[in-house]
Amino acid sequence: MKLVLVRHGESIWNKENLFTGWTDVDLSETGEKEAADAGRTLLEQGYDFDLCYTSYLKRAIHTLDHILEEMDRCWLPVVKTWKLNERHYGALQGLNKSETALKYGEEQVKIWRRSFDIAPPFLEETDPRNPALQEQYRQEKSQSGDILPLGESLKDTIERVVPYYNDVILKSMKEGKRVLVAAHGNSIRALVQYFENLKPEEIVDVNIPTGIPLVYEFDEAGKFIKKEYLGDPEAIKSKMEKVAAQGSASKTS
Amino acid sequence: MKLVLVRHGESIWNKENLFTGWTDVDLSETGEKEAADAGRTLLEQGYDFDLCYTSYLKRAIHTLDHILEEMDRCWLPVVKTWKLNERHYGALQGLNKSETALKYGEEQVKIWRRSFDIAPPFLEETDPRNPALQEQYRQEKSQSGDILPLGESLKDTIERVVPYYNDVILKSMKEGKRVLVAAHGNSIRALVQYFENLKPEEIVDVNIPTGIPLVYEFDEAGKFIKKEYLGDPEAIKSKMEKVAAQGSASKTS
Repeated sequence: MKLVLVRHGESIWNKENLFTGWTDVDLSETGEKEAADAGRTLLEQGYDFDLCYTSYLKRAIHTLDHILEEMDRCWLPVVKTWKLNERHYGALQGLNKSETALKYGEEQVKIWRRSFDIAPPFLEETDPRNPALQEQYRQEKSQSGDILPLGESLKDTIERVVPYYNDVILKSMKEGKRVLVAAHGNSIRALVQYFENLKPEEIVDVNIPTGIPLVYEFDEAGKFIKKEYLGDPEAIKSKMEKVAAQGSASKTS
Repeated sequence: MKLVLVRHGESIWNKENLFTGWTDVDLSETGEKEAADAGRTLLEQGYDFDLCYTSYLKRAIHTLDHILEEMDRCWLPVVKTWKLNERHYGALQGLNKSETALKYGEEQVKIWRRSFDIAPPFLEETDPRNPALQEQYRQEKSQSGDILPLGESLKDTIERVVPYYNDVILKSMKEGKRVLVAAHGNSIRALVQYFENLKPEEIVDVNIPTGIPLVYEFDEAGKFIKKEYLGDPEAIKSKMEKVAAQGSASKTS
């Protein structure tokens, strides 16, 4: 069994160095190009899919659209779920790094960024950005009874992503479906941590390059065998170094 | 209960005056603009949706994408089905009108275009355009056991669209979902014929304007009460006249 994960390309707020989280900002032109490149790579390497999953956020949805466009697979079924959304960045959403350091102090900001289980300051419940007040999440909540976050640590993100993977995505893979997931830095990290059984201090140092298909291979029981990034090795290496060099910025998208 | 139908905007082959049918050609720039206009109209008039249906053909899928983009509803669930595809135009697909008249005679072409229950010449089973040989339809067939067409009359199209409406779309409307359908001239005509109980000679004269939201209202039992086109009445009138003037061309897309 194989599973292909793609992290969305550069968004408009990535460019402007703002904390994004669940803010529904679109891809930049660079991000669109990265997504189309991912589609061409998958096509060239002979990949094909039966079912796609993405988040409720348009930067991931549009990444998937560009990939399917390049693969001439627009007709594939796409399941959208907030369970694959980016880590919710609470009250930091919309702030840029220097504003944040000014407001909370540099040390504190570093803790929010680098820690595994410390959440950022929560949104107020009355904040219009509270998911419980937003149409798409309100509907979902009334159907599933799920608790919607006002802010999340990476650990919190893992705790919503992994059950969704086991209950829904893995189930479709076991039915023989070839699955593509277009998601976010931290929702993909949640899967990586789970698949590879990484320790907290290990996963916070994993940087997922944007727009590079990441292929996981599992045995029939769903146990991780190996992983591979698709594309030109030199280009992937340079992209991973770039993401790593951005350091905390790449972890807080 | 309300249902909103939108016919896709101009495609590349519409522009070139070719029979399209199930050929998966994309929207022209004009078609993209028409789709975005439909989205703005729906937004301005206060419409919102819970669930969308479209065909397997990218000109309808992209029409829906543009509408959801304008409405900031990219996260809405979208169900894609070949049951909402355009009428299958068999061996006429890819031919232009003058070629067709040359090959089959003008009278015969008129019959294929204007009749209710006469199908165009079928594709050969070995034709790579046979849906049973194409990835998306092959999969669908193996799951549902449906018979895939090699060519369809309007009557044939109605006979696949209406059961899908009753079994799937109407069911979701009865669950309280606000439904948007982005489809094609003849799959929308199939619904119009069914909702309004039109005679064969009546439905062949109905021209659905492209990119204009068409709202049907039903009672609780699903019985047709009234319909309305959304948008500037003068613009709609001119668009309907344009479609009617194209005459047979508009019926054979």
